[in-house]
Amino acid sequence: MPRTLVRDLPAHIGERVTVYGWINTSRLQRKMQFVLVRDHTGMVQVTNKRTEPASETEETFEHAAIESAVKVTGTIVENPIVKLGGIELVPDSVEVVNAADSPLPINELTGIDQRLDWRFLDLRNPARTLIFQVQTTVEAALREFAYGEGATELHTPKFMGTASESGAEVFKVKYFDRTAYLAQSPQFYKQMAISGGIDKVFEIGPVFRAEPSFTSRHATEFTGIDLELAWIDGVEDVMSFEERMLAHVLAEVKAKHGEAIQELFGVEVVVPELPFPRITMRDAIEQLTEQGWKPEKVKGDLDPEGERSISALVQEKYGHQFVFITEFPIGVRPFYHMRNADRPEVTESFDLLWKGIEITTGAQREHRYDVLMKQAEEKGMATEPLKPYLDSFRFGTPPHGGLGAGLNRIMMVLLGVDSIRETTFLFRGPNRLEP
Amino acid sequence: MPRTLVRDLPAHIGERVTVYGWINTSRLQRKMQFVLVRDHTGMVQVTNKRTEPASETEETFEHAAIESAVKVTGTIVENPIVKLGGIELVPDSVEVVNAADSPLPINELTGIDQRLDWRFLDLRNPARTLIFQVQTTVEAALREFAYGEGATELHTPKFMGTASESGAEVFKVKYFDRTAYLAQSPQFYKQMAISGGIDKVFEIGPVFRAEPSFTSRHATEFTGIDLELAWIDGVEDVMSFEERMLAHVLAEVKAKHGEAIQELFGVEVVVPELPFPRITMRDAIEQLTEQGWKPEKVKGDLDPEGERSISALVQEKYGHQFVFITEFPIGVRPFYHMRNADRPEVTESFDLLWKGIEITTGAQREHRYDVLMKQAEEKGMATEPLKPYLDSFRFGTPPHGGLGAGLNRIMMVLLGVDSIRETTFLFRGPNRLEP
Repeated sequence: MPRTLVRDLPAHIGERVTVYGWINTSRLQRKMQFVLVRDHTGMVQVTNKRTEPASETEETFEHAAIESAVKVTGTIVENPIVKLGGIELVPDSVEVVNAADSPLPINELTGIDQRLDWRFLDLRNPARTLIFQVQTTVEAALREFAYGEGATELHTPKFMGTASESGAEVFKVKYFDRTAYLAQSPQFYKQMAISGGIDKVFEIGPVFRAEPSFTSRHATEFTGIDLELAWIDGVEDVMSFEERMLAHVLAEVKAKHGEAIQELFGVEVVVPELPFPRITMRDAIEQLTEQGWKPEKVKGDLDPEGERSISALVQEKYGHQFVFITEFPIGVRPFYHMRNADRPEVTESFDLLWKGIEITTGAQREHRYDVLMKQAEEKGMATEPLKPYLDSFRFGTPPHGGLGAGLNRIMMVLLGVDSIRETTFLFRGPNRLEP
Repeated sequence: MPRTLVRDLPAHIGERVTVYGWINTSRLQRKMQFVLVRDHTGMVQVTNKRTEPASETEETFEHAAIESAVKVTGTIVENPIVKLGGIELVPDSVEVVNAADSPLPINELTGIDQRLDWRFLDLRNPARTLIFQVQTTVEAALREFAYGEGATELHTPKFMGTASESGAEVFKVKYFDRTAYLAQSPQFYKQMAISGGIDKVFEIGPVFRAEPSFTSRHATEFTGIDLELAWIDGVEDVMSFEERMLAHVLAEVKAKHGEAIQELFGVEVVVPELPFPRITMRDAIEQLTEQGWKPEKVKGDLDPEGERSISALVQEKYGHQFVFITEFPIGVRPFYHMRNADRPEVTESFDLLWKGIEITTGAQREHRYDVLMKQAEEKGMATEPLKPYLDSFRFGTPPHGGLGAGLNRIMMVLLGVDSIRETTFLFRGPNRLEP
């Protein structure tokens, strides 16, 4: 029999159907067997009355281990006391397509690390399944918006000939008789595309960071969302693009998954008002200092505590989950960020915070070859390895700007989970290369 | 003034507009200046009459180098003798936003290798720009189809803890105090997702092959299209999915870019009839042998010459550009391909050829743990490093199958170009890591 998805069963009351899925739980009573069967669209109660002698179906359910893959055929019956949609499946046959070993290596009490060891079993939990269904919607909505604005999707190389952007925190690859480096971002390549006359560049792909960092927000490999826009009038154009894009994404997510996210994660998806609040770094630091905040590390930047506090202030003042922090000082930004024409100590740049967590870094880029060279030298960069990049500014590169965002972080904030490990299909960190 | 795209100019006759773009060519005559300005949507003739004394606009055009980025403001005028749509832009002002160096390092006669050195300039050629506009449409259509079938988009890790699939042809990465390997395909990970209850897995992302191969069809890094389908009845379900997906993609491409592809590449986009022809490997070899074909290398497989010949035969016999080659012998397929229940010497697998070039490899996978173990051992695989993969089959993995396709190759065949170097944004090969 062809498959009927669990979510479609209410339309088949009184009909004979076959469900393909996994045995979620099995309650085997003296007179009845109650078996919950789960597919990626939901769960259905299979209600099997025991007979004398026992039916083949009864025998099969008696011995089928939890999480075995099964096909159950039977009739859909209305039963108001059944919690799962007031229907049940009365089986006439069941096939164990692939039996599961028993016991399972993880259960509801298992900690994150062991859950990740058995990630495929962990993913069978409906909340985990939902993460990647929502992520698919997020990506589809990002692309729909970007395409609508005329963006071209590119796949920039992950192999680089030089560790151009910084040198630290870059993975080295043995590349035949030389060394390649894994791209920490598509930054230089998407700018080359802008120099190549591609009007708006969009990419979703892996980025690699050799950071020995164990926070809940860092990974050695994660999925980056990258955007670069040609012919902008200023960094404001980039921020405007991003806020409209995110509002579109969250409207789509709310429409398709709002209820499920509320149910399984206890989070209300809020479609943000436009424009998002903007606050300069100077004002942010001033306001935080008034509250007694003392930055941990770098002068002129926010630490995670500062990011949480400024988001809380903005939430209180404007009732908004998002805030753009603008005008980062040149000391904390790379050489290719454009500087303010009147105040050369600040860059035309921004971070976007969502509920206290940085999800995006963006800027207008310096597109004038001589200014770019000067800024690279001022930062003490060796310009020789940067030559292919710098040369791409010698032939009429238009003004441009863009952003890089982290998909896994966005999913983390969206679903209110406390680690990027939960929102990455198979997490990679300094201590984790498996499974 | 806000920007007007070149393709929209015909709707602005008699109006004053500003075009942002690059100086494509400049014909400076005694009484007139004819300057072609190009953006990503087309080309417009700027017609400037010289005056006495010379206008500022005239002076600027006189000295602006080819490929400089400019903003030209003026009035759109009908002129039937102008080839570019019968309109011209009569300028009243021009701004050189970023001047190009002169001379340009490449021109129309430059060979592919030097063109790739200056790929961003190469991309400004309208035919090259079109490649990535078409690719964007291809990807959008692939995703639209896959989403419509209920697929979940995943980003599988590119870092692997073991060189599990083969060991040869894999790049090694220094990963803190151990070694990581770059994924040659998402194969094992997308199967883990299937074991995780994700019903249909879709991914477009980079794959890495340490092949010292210099053919027109190989790269060390390319963009893979990966698909995996749970609960299939057989490999036919995978082929059916692919042929419907490609027909959808080509219908979209034809509708959006058919004319431009005809004009710039001289290729007619053909929307294929369904189903695609299918031919078993045994029949293919028999028919080729009758024609006098002698395989170069492996017994039971086709070499590039064989692929071209069988495609030509199918084109002649059925008038079809595509052909599925099925039932590959076990000797040329990996251990995880399912074997035919009645004829265990052949696998439930296929390749898809398009105009003589292999663009896809697919199969039903072996989902039964004990059979999979046996097949791995038979192939002489060390099963210990494969443990995380093999373990994922112990808990009710459903029957499944899928495919891997190469996006750059598809683009190469679609546009009729002779090398994957042309259809890759920034090509990577054994000798090329730049720009």
